Amino acid sequence: MESYLIQVNGHDEHGDHAMLDVQLKTNGNSIPLGKAKGRKPRWAVRASEMSKKTFNPVRAIVDSMKVEPNPKKAMISLSLGDPTVFGNLPTNNEVTRAVKEVLDSGRCNGYAPSVGYQSCREAVAAFYTSPEAPLEAKDVILTSGCSQAIELALAVLANPGQNILVPRPGFSLYKTLALSMGIEVKLYNLLPEKAWEIDLKHLESLVDEKTACLIVNNPSNPCGSVFSKRHLQKILAVASRQCVPILADEIYGDMVFDDCKFEPIATLSTNVPILSCGGLAKRWLVPGWRMGWILIHDRRDIFGNEIRDGLVRLSQRILGPCTLVQGALERILRQTPPEFYHNTLSILKSNADLCYTALSAIPGLRPVRPAGAMYLMVEIEMEHFPEFENDVEFTERLISEQSVFCLPATCFEYPNFFRVVITVPEEMILEACSRIQEFCEMHYQGAEGAQDLECDK
Amino acid sequence: MESYLIQVNGHDEHGDHAMLDVQLKTNGNSIPLGKAKGRKPRWAVRASEMSKKTFNPVRAIVDSMKVEPNPKKAMISLSLGDPTVFGNLPTNNEVTRAVKEVLDSGRCNGYAPSVGYQSCREAVAAFYTSPEAPLEAKDVILTSGCSQAIELALAVLANPGQNILVPRPGFSLYKTLALSMGIEVKLYNLLPEKAWEIDLKHLESLVDEKTACLIVNNPSNPCGSVFSKRHLQKILAVASRQCVPILADEIYGDMVFDDCKFEPIATLSTNVPILSCGGLAKRWLVPGWRMGWILIHDRRDIFGNEIRDGLVRLSQRILGPCTLVQGALERILRQTPPEFYHNTLSILKSNADLCYTALSAIPGLRPVRPAGAMYLMVEIEMEHFPEFENDVEFTERLISEQSVFCLPATCFEYPNFFRVVITVPEEMILEACSRIQEFCEMHYQGAEGAQDLECDK
Repeated sequence: MESYLIQVNGHDEHGDHAMLDVQLKTNGNSIPLGKAKGRKPRWAVRASEMSKKTFNPVRAIVDSMKVEPNPKKAMISLSLGDPTVFGNLPTNNEVTRAVKEVLDSGRCNGYAPSVGYQSCREAVAAFYTSPEAPLEAKDVILTSGCSQAIELALAVLANPGQNILVPRPGFSLYKTLALSMGIEVKLYNLLPEKAWEIDLKHLESLVDEKTACLIVNNPSNPCGSVFSKRHLQKILAVASRQCVPILADEIYGDMVFDDCKFEPIATLSTNVPILSCGGLAKRWLVPGWRMGWILIHDRRDIFGNEIRDGLVRLSQRILGPCTLVQGALERILRQTPPEFYHNTLSILKSNADLCYTALSAIPGLRPVRPAGAMYLMVEIEMEHFPEFENDVEFTERLISEQSVFCLPATCFEYPNFFRVVITVPEEMILEACSRIQEFCEMHYQGAEGAQDLECDK
Repeated sequence: MESYLIQVNGHDEHGDHAMLDVQLKTNGNSIPLGKAKGRKPRWAVRASEMSKKTFNPVRAIVDSMKVEPNPKKAMISLSLGDPTVFGNLPTNNEVTRAVKEVLDSGRCNGYAPSVGYQSCREAVAAFYTSPEAPLEAKDVILTSGCSQAIELALAVLANPGQNILVPRPGFSLYKTLALSMGIEVKLYNLLPEKAWEIDLKHLESLVDEKTACLIVNNPSNPCGSVFSKRHLQKILAVASRQCVPILADEIYGDMVFDDCKFEPIATLSTNVPILSCGGLAKRWLVPGWRMGWILIHDRRDIFGNEIRDGLVRLSQRILGPCTLVQGALERILRQTPPEFYHNTLSILKSNADLCYTALSAIPGLRPVRPAGAMYLMVEIEMEHFPEFENDVEFTERLISEQSVFCLPATCFEYPNFFRVVITVPEEMILEACSRIQEFCEMHYQGAEGAQDLECDK
């Protein structure tokens, strides 16, 4: 005890050595002296509740799939929503040139305002403004990727104990962020038989007095669906009736195939307040650059200064996106040639068609035709695959037998489907589809097997 | 009421127009129907508590200083901790070339792991490892600037209701982040008469069973002080005795003048668990690039996997720093020539000396000589300036009369001082000091005035 007292009085001159004694002496014992003074005589460092509540279901499910690919077949991964993985979809030269120009100028190395350079906010406003949903620089908050845009939007709209309405199937980050902030998640259903439109009655039935916002993701990850103008109007009608603001995740905005049109949801409403989240990631094919934004649509002044000021204050916590990309943003938005966007979309559309056609022909699978984004969802008729308990087991075995990796849609709260990423090169899509076919043929059980299964129930 | 019922039943086909009716009808009235069903018949979007608790004192104080500079004198701002503002401290060519190479390669446009590329984590570990405090890739978490490093470190270590120990004077972000997370801040004193060393007794007296961590900022913003090895050992002794982990803000690490040495605090302890936060911002003169990191020092396994896993989980919320800078990091750390660092420091040292000498000669001011970082703190002998109530008024009038802007140290919880940024060009420092002299001579009241004031007490 002596050495402890000496140290408390500040006479310790020996640094770590003397301290070690203390640690050894106090460790495992409760020493009244320390306790009486309200001190902490033992090391007990615990991770915070928030860090424990921060949970990425995709990581958890994928990490639990401890499975080796078939060593005889090269791995084909159709799992990652990153269009840059295979090098077949490079960004445009204009985009990289714009950043190089910024580097050469040396003018964007310092701190930007936490909501972004004024000129960049103007550029984003100019790019997305429309007569139906006008935008000015003050309506734009630049963020470190669309993930931070969603984080800030949720953080300003919802308190712990409130709830948000989230699509099922849907992007897992909504839930990860919400739960980490103590916000409850209520899942509303999308309907595969109606091209993944929202079950509006179900949606509306979930609203209560604690509902802080409705997340609308269009075009959709993981569905690859694109809502029609009319469906969006119906969604807005629910939001308007129930007085629930909308968080629109429009990161795949404008990434739709030629036979349909992307309607920014804010252009269809004159009253519902909307925070639209977007960024460079997908359309400009640079997700790693972490350039995102929030567009504030509030023509009835329902958000008012309170939400705007709240977003500004929250942005000061980590000070916005990389200034090299910010500095290049105006040029990127203005000068990326239209052919670049068209080319990306025509590749995606072609892959979507190939994939849809190939998978449609496979007994036991029911793909849903996508209209945009970079994904396609496939239903597994589980009654025809009695060997597998669920989509996770199905996709696990697809890896171990065929070295093809698709995400089980349990990752998106939607069992018995899997998601296919369609940004991979055409030959890989074809090879993957043919292996999936082989796999399904191997394990498919016809009507008989299905009947057996039904008898078991 | 009729139209409301029709809409609830989902028969509304008119979009916004019909909804408007509802809003007008329900607005300002409490309609029993809506309430009975637990619905929200009125718009009432409020900013979250967290967004309200997120408060930047510097912004608040500076915004309240509604004062125009003297139109006859060009403005000299010594307020912003951004070394790039005046162009006199460009980053090194090697640094920009490294990013250009990454752009040309096209290999870093996709998502990196949320904690950063493995190769970059290795590069940071290799750069900062030492025999006393060895680091491997797994001990490095890359973040969007040092601000996010501090945010993640606080978020993993502290729960709402716990407290952290923060230096006074100190960088305002600690408090901004802590309060936004519901963490209490306890300020421990630094002693200007002892070159801003920590008042260790005061520090230790603040520890209680709710203390989650001790923030040690060395070299210091706003003080420009650098702790000696011996003082750091004493700080570690307190942490070790009290079993409080350390969050070391070492963003100004190695930015010390030639007559002293920077000791990373982790190299002096074998037991205290330490999260050291740093980044490219200051030493490489690119704060806008938002490249930061956390170095995990935990040789006694006190943090253990819990804190490590917690940091990884938290990093998944917004997915790390811009990949262009990540990709360049290894080359930046390896190939930036030593002359670059030396040159920066010799300019800072020279400016610090000039500024200290000039301000020392001004009656009524007492600068504290800095030993590193980019700042110098100046005490205002307020009894000699009876016209001004406090440092905020003093610095306000310095703007309106002399067009010189220094931050009042009330921004750092330390009234009656102001902070001078010493990264500006030499001629500006000299001009600013001469204007400060003119200002002080104009307003200084000698012993008599001082006595008058003392009589008033």
